[in-house]
Amino acid sequence: MKTTSLFLQQLGFTRPGILVNEAQAKANIRAMADKAKRAGAIFRPHFKTHQSADVGQWFADEGVQCITVSSVEMAEYFADHGWHDITIAFLLNPLEWPRIEPLARKLETSGGRLGLTVDSLAAAAFVASRLDVRVQIWIKVDAGYGRTGVHWQDAETIKLIADQLKATHGIAGLLTHSGDSYHAASGKEILDIWNRTRERLEDIVHQLEMPQLIISVGDTPGCRSVNDLSGVQEIRPGNFIFFDLMQWSQGVCETHELATAAVCPVVGLYPKRGHIVVHGGAVHLSRECLTDDRGTMVFGYLGTMTSNSDGSTSQQVLKHFPMTSLSQEHGVIEITDNNLGIFENLELGDLVLIWPVHSCLTCDLSREYKTISSSILKKF
Amino acid sequence: MKTTSLFLQQLGFTRPGILVNEAQAKANIRAMADKAKRAGAIFRPHFKTHQSADVGQWFADEGVQCITVSSVEMAEYFADHGWHDITIAFLLNPLEWPRIEPLARKLETSGGRLGLTVDSLAAAAFVASRLDVRVQIWIKVDAGYGRTGVHWQDAETIKLIADQLKATHGIAGLLTHSGDSYHAASGKEILDIWNRTRERLEDIVHQLEMPQLIISVGDTPGCRSVNDLSGVQEIRPGNFIFFDLMQWSQGVCETHELATAAVCPVVGLYPKRGHIVVHGGAVHLSRECLTDDRGTMVFGYLGTMTSNSDGSTSQQVLKHFPMTSLSQEHGVIEITDNNLGIFENLELGDLVLIWPVHSCLTCDLSREYKTISSSILKKF
Repeated sequence: MKTTSLFLQQLGFTRPGILVNEAQAKANIRAMADKAKRAGAIFRPHFKTHQSADVGQWFADEGVQCITVSSVEMAEYFADHGWHDITIAFLLNPLEWPRIEPLARKLETSGGRLGLTVDSLAAAAFVASRLDVRVQIWIKVDAGYGRTGVHWQDAETIKLIADQLKATHGIAGLLTHSGDSYHAASGKEILDIWNRTRERLEDIVHQLEMPQLIISVGDTPGCRSVNDLSGVQEIRPGNFIFFDLMQWSQGVCETHELATAAVCPVVGLYPKRGHIVVHGGAVHLSRECLTDDRGTMVFGYLGTMTSNSDGSTSQQVLKHFPMTSLSQEHGVIEITDNNLGIFENLELGDLVLIWPVHSCLTCDLSREYKTISSSILKKF
Repeated sequence: MKTTSLFLQQLGFTRPGILVNEAQAKANIRAMADKAKRAGAIFRPHFKTHQSADVGQWFADEGVQCITVSSVEMAEYFADHGWHDITIAFLLNPLEWPRIEPLARKLETSGGRLGLTVDSLAAAAFVASRLDVRVQIWIKVDAGYGRTGVHWQDAETIKLIADQLKATHGIAGLLTHSGDSYHAASGKEILDIWNRTRERLEDIVHQLEMPQLIISVGDTPGCRSVNDLSGVQEIRPGNFIFFDLMQWSQGVCETHELATAAVCPVVGLYPKRGHIVVHGGAVHLSRECLTDDRGTMVFGYLGTMTSNSDGSTSQQVLKHFPMTSLSQEHGVIEITDNNLGIFENLELGDLVLIWPVHSCLTCDLSREYKTISSSILKKF
């Protein structure tokens, strides 16, 4: 505990913040980029996880040119930072057209393109009537998750949407997000979802007799777990750059691959109550939680991080120190009777490292990140 | 639905945002300020709910001069916007002293003061050794909530802390937050918590033989529900300015008192799946949830807002349209078979109003607010 606290203090942390393990994040990027390359699939990472132009540069360094975002304003931000091929993998909101149109023109002018997502005839008709700028249209398909998208068995509607856009923008492909994989109980279930998704989308392409359509899939559990990406032409994972406890507890990633953590100062030590209170609450970590073996909600686990003599770092997840409650700014770490020794190793003003449950939401809440080499990374 | 959508479009909303009912928020401020005045209690509202200098001005207009914040940086923000008497009702983090000290000096120079909160001998010793600036010290007491603070039965430790600070800064009073009132099952339980808290703190003051100590309490359910604030010398509620579904479902506030809502565009309509998808997810509303009568998690209820001929507005909470799931940017509104008529009244690009479960967290996620008169309110 003391070693980790010292490590974090040496990086200059004094209040709640986000630590990024730059070397590991880059390794995570490279692994996914290589996997896409081996399968000949386009790698269009989702930037909603990190939302940082500085982190985006790490992808550019790996040769990435196409990206995914989740809102028009996030697309504008990355367009302002040199990205020209951007898919907004979120259903078109017609009210935002006055912002979408100039953005699409800007990307087109710089040799790129803006991708938009639709899943209804109404949205297709809206875009088809707007000929003043060329955009790339994706049809969102629900391959079983059940949230948005045309149902995978409704090839007729998909055909009608494609027909509606034929004369104007055309369609690039079928886009899906198998969000159910984040709740899969096993690695086998993740692979089953992956295979089912691919088969259903391939079947639509076959039915439509439009083999040129790209199949684009997006979930980190699937993209990470499957050995061979064959059968899909584009992948859009996001979370894999940092991973988090959700992925870790699913067995999708290993401990050393966790590449971001919250850093929180200890503000209260209560041996009698069996807990430690840190400055780190819902406004820092989000209220995303796991349920542990006891059925208790967990908002994060304490961790360790230490420097090795070769300049690398080692890290651990301490499941016996769960954050079991949090309010706006406070986080409560449960200390069971077996672990009271921690009170001899921690004092007021020490820093602890908390592995977040869902790195996308935790990162969204921060204005910047700090790397292990003390660099500040600015974000959206 | 259409009337509300039109109302929100006329205000200029096109993407997820926060609407503030300025007239109602001001009425909520006035009601609480008057209640404090009647009891002769200091009104030191918690600004962590709104985090906005513009909203702060509404408090100043009601004569408020003392405020509460939850972090050093929030204190700095409000100090930069003309507030000179600020209590940080969050336990002292010694690592932040290099920021606390100049802030305290700045407030002292402008005739004000910075209040700090401690609950341990270690924190008291830390502050006592720093004589270079005068600060106001509050001892945090746990009056039964069990999160932070010296236990209410441990008057001895409170005495030791007070003694430690006697020679230097002295102590202003006992500060508590009865956060358990937010989970109270009834109005009676809220009042019981209030009375129990007050009695326990009065008892400590009596035991210490320090009648000059101020008793400062903070929860909105208590401050709102109790008729007579006598017995406490200071109140620090925050949420009452906007209220939210948590307060509403507890019976703490009425529908017309809800003064902030999320505005979300409809991006998907799925009669067969029985849901509507809006652009409005965890990054807009937070993942705070209620549990409804069926045991289902609810992240917000749809609402209506309409203009009256006299320029005022009317609003409703539609419990039959719950947001039952949300991911990073998507919110899913459940539409049961009885309510399928909504699909005839809504179309892609309409705007809906979502009452948030916890206004503090929803507001924290937004960069600005828009009022019913279309003013933009900047925030921290």
